[in-house]
Amino acid sequence: MALKTPEQYIDSIREIKPRVFIAGKRIEDVTQHANTRNGINVVAKTYELALNPKYQELLTATSHLTGEKISRWCHVPGSIDDLDKRRWMNVLMSQKVGTCHVRCVGTEAIQVMASATYAMDQKLGTEYNKRFNNFLRFMQENDLTCNGPQTDAKGDRGKRPLDQEDPDLYLHVVEKRSDGIIVRGAKLHQEGNFACHYHLVSPPLVPLRKGEEDYALSFAIPVGAKGMTYVCQDGPMESERRVAEDIHNLGNPLYGSSVSSMTIFDDVFVPWENVFMCGEIEFSREYLDRFSQVHNLVCRSACKVGFMDLIIGAAQTMAEYNGIARASHVVDKITEMIRVRETTHACATAAIMLGKEDPPGSGVYFPDFMSTLMGSLNTQYGLPQAALLAADIAGGAVVTMPSELELKNPETSQYVKKYLKGVASVSTEDRMRMLKFLQHWVAGPQGVRMWHGGVPPQAHRLTVYREALAGLEEKKKLAKELAGIKE
Amino acid sequence: MALKTPEQYIDSIREIKPRVFIAGKRIEDVTQHANTRNGINVVAKTYELALNPKYQELLTATSHLTGEKISRWCHVPGSIDDLDKRRWMNVLMSQKVGTCHVRCVGTEAIQVMASATYAMDQKLGTEYNKRFNNFLRFMQENDLTCNGPQTDAKGDRGKRPLDQEDPDLYLHVVEKRSDGIIVRGAKLHQEGNFACHYHLVSPPLVPLRKGEEDYALSFAIPVGAKGMTYVCQDGPMESERRVAEDIHNLGNPLYGSSVSSMTIFDDVFVPWENVFMCGEIEFSREYLDRFSQVHNLVCRSACKVGFMDLIIGAAQTMAEYNGIARASHVVDKITEMIRVRETTHACATAAIMLGKEDPPGSGVYFPDFMSTLMGSLNTQYGLPQAALLAADIAGGAVVTMPSELELKNPETSQYVKKYLKGVASVSTEDRMRMLKFLQHWVAGPQGVRMWHGGVPPQAHRLTVYREALAGLEEKKKLAKELAGIKE
Amino acid sequence: MALKTPEQYIDSIREIKPRVFIAGKRIEDVTQHANTRNGINVVAKTYELALNPKYQELLTATSHLTGEKISRWCHVPGSIDDLDKRRWMNVLMSQKVGTCHVRCVGTEAIQVMASATYAMDQKLGTEYNKRFNNFLRFMQENDLTCNGPQTDAKGDRGKRPLDQEDPDLYLHVVEKRSDGIIVRGAKLHQEGNFACHYHLVSPPLVPLRKGEEDYALSFAIPVGAKGMTYVCQDGPMESERRVAEDIHNLGNPLYGSSVSSMTIFDDVFVPWENVFMCGEIEFSREYLDRFSQVHNLVCRSACKVGFMDLIIGAAQTMAEYNGIARASHVVDKITEMIRVRETTHACATAAIMLGKEDPPGSGVYFPDFMSTLMGSLNTQYGLPQAALLAADIAGGAVVTMPSELELKNPETSQYVKKYLKGVASVSTEDRMRMLKFLQHWVAGPQGVRMWHGGVPPQAHRLTVYREALAGLEEKKKLAKELAGIKE
Amino acid sequence: MALKTPEQYIDSIREIKPRVFIAGKRIEDVTQHANTRNGINVVAKTYELALNPKYQELLTATSHLTGEKISRWCHVPGSIDDLDKRRWMNVLMSQKVGTCHVRCVGTEAIQVMASATYAMDQKLGTEYNKRFNNFLRFMQENDLTCNGPQTDAKGDRGKRPLDQEDPDLYLHVVEKRSDGIIVRGAKLHQEGNFACHYHLVSPPLVPLRKGEEDYALSFAIPVGAKGMTYVCQDGPMESERRVAEDIHNLGNPLYGSSVSSMTIFDDVFVPWENVFMCGEIEFSREYLDRFSQVHNLVCRSACKVGFMDLIIGAAQTMAEYNGIARASHVVDKITEMIRVRETTHACATAAIMLGKEDPPGSGVYFPDFMSTLMGSLNTQYGLPQAALLAADIAGGAVVTMPSELELKNPETSQYVKKYLKGVASVSTEDRMRMLKFLQHWVAGPQGVRMWHGGVPPQAHRLTVYREALAGLEEKKKLAKELAGIKE
Repeated sequence: MALKTPEQYIDSIREIKPRVFIAGKRIEDVTQHANTRNGINVVAKTYELALNPKYQELLTATSHLTGEKISRWCHVPGSIDDLDKRRWMNVLMSQKVGTCHVRCVGTEAIQVMASATYAMDQKLGTEYNKRFNNFLRFMQENDLTCNGPQTDAKGDRGKRPLDQEDPDLYLHVVEKRSDGIIVRGAKLHQEGNFACHYHLVSPPLVPLRKGEEDYALSFAIPVGAKGMTYVCQDGPMESERRVAEDIHNLGNPLYGSSVSSMTIFDDVFVPWENVFMCGEIEFSREYLDRFSQVHNLVCRSACKVGFMDLIIGAAQTMAEYNGIARASHVVDKITEMIRVRETTHACATAAIMLGKEDPPGSGVYFPDFMSTLMGSLNTQYGLPQAALLAADIAGGAVVTMPSELELKNPETSQYVKKYLKGVASVSTEDRMRMLKFLQHWVAGPQGVRMWHGGVPPQAHRLTVYREALAGLEEKKKLAKELAGIKE
Repeated sequence: MALKTPEQYIDSIREIKPRVFIAGKRIEDVTQHANTRNGINVVAKTYELALNPKYQELLTATSHLTGEKISRWCHVPGSIDDLDKRRWMNVLMSQKVGTCHVRCVGTEAIQVMASATYAMDQKLGTEYNKRFNNFLRFMQENDLTCNGPQTDAKGDRGKRPLDQEDPDLYLHVVEKRSDGIIVRGAKLHQEGNFACHYHLVSPPLVPLRKGEEDYALSFAIPVGAKGMTYVCQDGPMESERRVAEDIHNLGNPLYGSSVSSMTIFDDVFVPWENVFMCGEIEFSREYLDRFSQVHNLVCRSACKVGFMDLIIGAAQTMAEYNGIARASHVVDKITEMIRVRETTHACATAAIMLGKEDPPGSGVYFPDFMSTLMGSLNTQYGLPQAALLAADIAGGAVVTMPSELELKNPETSQYVKKYLKGVASVSTEDRMRMLKFLQHWVAGPQGVRMWHGGVPPQAHRLTVYREALAGLEEKKKLAKELAGIKE
Repeated sequence: MALKTPEQYIDSIREIKPRVFIAGKRIEDVTQHANTRNGINVVAKTYELALNPKYQELLTATSHLTGEKISRWCHVPGSIDDLDKRRWMNVLMSQKVGTCHVRCVGTEAIQVMASATYAMDQKLGTEYNKRFNNFLRFMQENDLTCNGPQTDAKGDRGKRPLDQEDPDLYLHVVEKRSDGIIVRGAKLHQEGNFACHYHLVSPPLVPLRKGEEDYALSFAIPVGAKGMTYVCQDGPMESERRVAEDIHNLGNPLYGSSVSSMTIFDDVFVPWENVFMCGEIEFSREYLDRFSQVHNLVCRSACKVGFMDLIIGAAQTMAEYNGIARASHVVDKITEMIRVRETTHACATAAIMLGKEDPPGSGVYFPDFMSTLMGSLNTQYGLPQAALLAADIAGGAVVTMPSELELKNPETSQYVKKYLKGVASVSTEDRMRMLKFLQHWVAGPQGVRMWHGGVPPQAHRLTVYREALAGLEEKKKLAKELAGIKE
Repeated sequence: MALKTPEQYIDSIREIKPRVFIAGKRIEDVTQHANTRNGINVVAKTYELALNPKYQELLTATSHLTGEKISRWCHVPGSIDDLDKRRWMNVLMSQKVGTCHVRCVGTEAIQVMASATYAMDQKLGTEYNKRFNNFLRFMQENDLTCNGPQTDAKGDRGKRPLDQEDPDLYLHVVEKRSDGIIVRGAKLHQEGNFACHYHLVSPPLVPLRKGEEDYALSFAIPVGAKGMTYVCQDGPMESERRVAEDIHNLGNPLYGSSVSSMTIFDDVFVPWENVFMCGEIEFSREYLDRFSQVHNLVCRSACKVGFMDLIIGAAQTMAEYNGIARASHVVDKITEMIRVRETTHACATAAIMLGKEDPPGSGVYFPDFMSTLMGSLNTQYGLPQAALLAADIAGGAVVTMPSELELKNPETSQYVKKYLKGVASVSTEDRMRMLKFLQHWVAGPQGVRMWHGGVPPQAHRLTVYREALAGLEEKKKLAKELAGIKE
């Protein structure tokens, strides 16, 4: 089947009608509602770009299952070149939509489960890989979108799943039947559930232990399946978008900050053919590391490099609009922002170039773990600083600017036009739009999102140490040799 | 006349009816509108605390003009003890309202103009001080509130006022008449205009030069005077507050983020009796330094120390709600936040203790300049980091949490209650409220506000160097002596 | 008795003849040896300044024991003014000698033991305070110098004193006799032992527990007492000074980096009259905190502020010698160095101004603990950065410069003079001396010394948290109130 | 001709007898003097490793000129694989010698001049490349070592070469003759001049302008040629090494901190056959960028990654010797050090993988410029911090430790052995050696060397901005598109 057009994609989403709630109310048509439409615009953009000859090499690939041309979003990277294209696809998307791409984590889950099911089958004689490939072939052939629900509710973060008062705080199997399993729990922080056709659900983000088999769980399920409910995040930016009379009064009009939701599984049935892990606790740690490798590359490095392009571009534009682009401190701030961007970008490049098939024979390529961790930490530490520098250049109006609606208000438009003017050659409207665009980055939740999304830096630090542990012995040996210490 | 009650204050504000606009619409009653009511709540709190015996020593003072007991917000600090009480008044207010106090800059302007008018009269034989004291006596006797419009529109930041294409981009005199002056221009970023009775307008935040006399301007004017219009900021938080069905769905329900507005002077008449500077360019630099001293102390150090108490308290609470309060990295993060808070606090204390009457004979006390600059820079660099650490502890739900309205939605409340639960002993509702409270600090405009409000760090750095220049020669001498260099 | 002259001081030190070793050899006359003479020069400077009318108010005080004029180095601060003078005395000394003042920790120990002996007597009915005052009177009357040995050898840092394989790794009592005690152990890192008349020994830098009574120990002992040996540090700077043909080839010719030594107590007898704590474990924690308060003020804040004056002065001089003083990045680097200096200075001022008598009735004043911790941490984090900035300005020659001896070598002097020249107006010799002076600060052990001397930053962080713990509850309450959480 | 043995290399150096001075005295035999022998040990190690089968693939290569097996130090990288091996060769050397490798800049100059002479010939029709290849063939065939003198004396850094009072402050041609040129000036900061056979001299580190043709100069000259004099750096570490009775009392016994010298050209004759650039100002900028690319990779990234291995290894060893390896703050510090190491390493990997032939057709490969700048800045900012963390873990004894000579002194050895002991299982001697090894890194000139060596970070920042300038326009366009701004 051919690649879907954006319109076909939107039509297919309109038919799903999942139970989605925001601000205490049901959303009837996600393709129309202000808080879901923008996420659907983002995914529609992925379909549009795949049909654009200019971007086709980046946005499409050849399926290793069918040999057909498919969307790269459904593709399993099988080479270093694939990893590199995956990276550039994400940089491009960030530059084009300036917000979460919705599909990334799903595509990560495809890559990871392709590898994990292969590894399980090799070691345990299971048939997960065959099942998974069937599912993936179906996705590819119908050019569908999936996301990858992952973070559990977790309750008391100091306790393991079974020690919680409520055992459902981590998603788990509550019943195994001959035709499938019944699962209960919730996955949090999931961007754009309502813009997808499928969920590809992952095991929890903690390495599991003996006795916790019911939590070692991966499966695919259609969005809006029986028993599923979605409760959307609702913060200031969601209110603003919901009540905006004109999307041009928003910081990133078409795409906004896409909206995450809690994904609730209330005794949901999954047929065995869609179950890709069920009880294999020893593979949950492996899963985690592989997921971290690809997520750090795609979401922390590639995606944020594209975001940085936008923030730097906006800051430089504002410097020019304000008449300060040549001030030495402005040049130094722009330089620092570039430094953050380029360091992350270099780490991503290294991670890709050192990529390896894992496990051998699986045909699935992963980037170098340590390099992706470096890219991720550099983003987490550097990007919030870069955002502050951008705010510094833009000035206080990034917070205190009035609505663009005033430009149409006969009682205020003359004043706003006159007094929010920067350099004479730029219209006040343009200056306000760029201020609003930067507001979106520096005066909203993006700072925290960058710091926190996926895996917080503290978790990364622990992983860095763990990964480096073996090498410490060699380093000690080198130092002892030069210091003249005999062992 | 006695101190006003909060109710009397609100009644007096209701009568003013200035032309205030937000999101393209006129606000009819500022005491009722969601985006102005919270700022009025803040000022009402200042009246309430002044009548509370527990806080009376901090919130009231004895007028040096009348000998009567007055609100400290209308008081000119006449001693180190006064500076210290001014500081603690602001710490207390921050702790109680968790947002801009509205009155600070007005009170700063009172202090600065008391000193500047004295200095001008001494040097130039003018009568500004007498006029100013009349105005101040009137404010004190009627227990009124003023703010201090200050930042001009500025247009092309690389050009001086007269080099702008539009000479009105800095507020200036357009006509001098026998009975007063006509002024035109706008002041930006002004918090809570609509919650005040008067504006005490300051000269621009650039040192003026010969030829720019029309811009050297300070005067008092009633809020809502003929020719004045206010256009409010309108960002995500304003939308959220405007459409909230219940203020408990907001991060800081009663007080929110108060709303700034552009203050537009469209050929406004000011009688000479309310003009306190008009053409004295040589005093504009002096004004700037004195303003910076008191603003750095009150708004950058005292105020932010109170904010930090709230952020630290919220982060520690969230650590406990999440079950991670004893993790070593959490302890270290809380420690770092305390370090930021206490360093700023110590700089404020030093600034107060080294305070001096300026100019001698004026009876007006100012804190030590260099120490206030240190407090301010420490806040600007440290507070955004502290906010990130707080977000780190709180977790991603600080961004992705749903509305508290879901708790009343029969279709979702069971899910939200179940899956947003932290440790078993804390209700989901309490956890959501604390998350929402922290969202207000870490995922909104506060980061930029702290970085930028008043004077950006870059400007401070230049001042630090300028202030330290003289001392550099002495330092060079000391180093040369020890290095064995003869001069 | 009158204040000693520098010459009298040196004569009195010459007579002591302690067993001091460096680089494997005994030092016969500490007043002549290159590695000890400079430390004696430092202490001699304290005597010289005390007799200089210009500095007398700072360097002398009135004894609370005798009412006589004494050296401030033997004085117990009895007021906020005393704390302030103590601070300025240290700033001055740093500016004048540019290295460790030798006497500081001894003077700290005097202050702390004055307070601790008073507290013990009050609580336990001991007579330590009387004994201590006798000792102090003797010191004051004879204008003697003491230092304050403190850090134990510590062995395995993960184990307590009694769990070490060797119980002597912490200094302890090995025998109690009717006339006194026998002690064994060693104190490390002690600056200028050989330049003092007495040691005033402190308990270890860990809070002691029941069973560890033999380690709770404070006493005074003459330098060079029977059983005592001193082994000096010997690093690159000591070698350089030892072999320098001319002290002008050194970075800080007269005073250098003074030399620390291990202070070994090999069954040393101390008469009871000089024992000021012996077994009172419950006071060891108190001792620690009081010591930390005064050490953070005097050695971490005051002293380092004086050092910063020298580093800033040298960096600015080098910028001028190199012809780059007006480059915007140089101005910004100097500004950053000033920021570090002034923030620490402000914290010190706050600590002094909030000083209190402790315990009440003792007549001994201590600075505010939290403020001194802030001053100390700001120094520890900021000073190494400032040193790097100074190196950046000075250029690579700060490391690669040849010896000043080349200027007298007919075969090389013309080349060195020609090619190490900076701006035309400054002689190469002066440029080399300033480079050498900065080398002393930025390319030697000073960076680590600043980071580490006294108490490492990690220990401070733990103290900050401990000190702030009580306040956390109040902060939580404030946040909960605003968030709308009922308790 | 075969690869030289270390002994053959040392013999060949002994014969050269250049005029080298240190501390005002001539060094007669550089292979024997304590301050030059260690640098020769370093270069001898490069010969030793090249003959070691284990490292042969890394340390040797096939000459593109002769097809023979040659030392990689004389090789021009002709592929990405060559760049990668060049990197690993440097990492290995750093791990093995823990100090400057002496040969790096010479090898960089070989690479850069191979490219630059090709480019000049292509554009200007000169014959530099042929001459250069003759020289290089001679170097390869005789397995010789060269270094690359580069930094001029510079005098007043605010002035250009011709504006200096003394025109010799930049090396220049003073006479052109039919058989060659006469040059005068000096190159500073050159490591290990006396350990090389040849200098390959580079143009100055400033882009030259019209009129400055005499300064656009590159040539090869034997070490110790007529008119050449070398004046060595002489700081504390040189004194220490010079007077050490036993090299085991030094921090890095065999290799130390190698010694730089001023390289003075006093009217030195260079035959035309060894002149590779003479007057081509338009190529000086190109030269600079290419040099920066390879220097940032080799000396700032690869070399420092090897150093970091040693510092991390030493810090971890000290943590274990001190009994604190499991403390959470120690784990976090080690993690941070690893983060610095791995980020630089990843940037180097990216730079290599994105390497390109430059100019096309030259057969010379260069790493990606921006990635090398990132590796370099990450080292410059991160390594001094890492050194402080290492010092923090090691403790104050890293500064205050006595000489190892005390262990042989019957009067002190028992004390030093007893009281400098750490955990019971490690000998005091081993602990002292590791402390001494770390002293070398953290308490000496290494911090500044890392910050400054080659190109200071400020210069890098300017280059980053310049390199990024073109991309800024594209970034602005992306931001404007999303913000809804039409151009």
